[in-house]
Amino acid sequence: MYTGIRVKDMDESIKFYTEVMGMKLKERNENDVTGGEIATVVGGDRGSEIELNYYKKESKYFKPYSTGEELDHLAFWLGADYDKFLSEAKKKGYETVLEVKSSTNRYAFIQDPNGIFILIA
Amino acid sequence: MYTGIRVKDMDESIKFYTEVMGMKLKERNENDVTGGEIATVVGGDRGSEIELNYYKKESKYFKPYSTGEELDHLAFWLGADYDKFLSEAKKKGYETVLEVKSSTNRYAFIQDPNGIFILIA
Repeated sequence: MYTGIRVKDMDESIKFYTEVMGMKLKERNENDVTGGEIATVVGGDRGSEIELNYYKKESKYFKPYSTGEELDHLAFWLGADYDKFLSEAKKKGYETVLEVKSSTNRYAFIQDPNGIFILIA
Repeated sequence: MYTGIRVKDMDESIKFYTEVMGMKLKERNENDVTGGEIATVVGGDRGSEIELNYYKKESKYFKPYSTGEELDHLAFWLGADYDKFLSEAKKKGYETVLEVKSSTNRYAFIQDPNGIFILIA
């Protein structure tokens, strides 16, 4: 199983998922069906896979990018690297937008270049 | 890593991901932070995990459900069970909404109860 997200800028999105989130770029190709580009990044626990989909304005599949409610967040487990990760992400321009702390739990959100909420736990 | 989606109806969504997609319900709990419910379904290749998030109208996190562009699709590999799966899904009320066939490739989409595109390959 993988999750396919739509991206506004392919280069910037690949940079985020590889350089900030530590995933690896598996492939990047033109998409014959949509007339855009398609890239796959993999990594993290369970070899998770995210597909990045870019559509050209001329494509019949293109729609102006809008924020909806279907995708709540993508979550990554950092465990012991939690604080270090958030500090590094901030240096790379991705500030924590929300942090939740309780006596039993803590997690934080950053946002990818498309505005998608990325949960760090 | 997991993908968290927002659902309109928790019962109906759990039913879809377990009975149609063949995943297993791992847990279902009230969510202290959002005042809603949170459920996790797992299964398929790599033990993939999808989190279903339901927010009550009274919650400060609630928003009317709208279709955006961030989530392009969730993809499941059926392989040799492709035709059988689509036939069974149709019987359960989930018709194929788009099928793409070429000399080298074939895949189809159904939609989950929230309208999310589910790619079957």
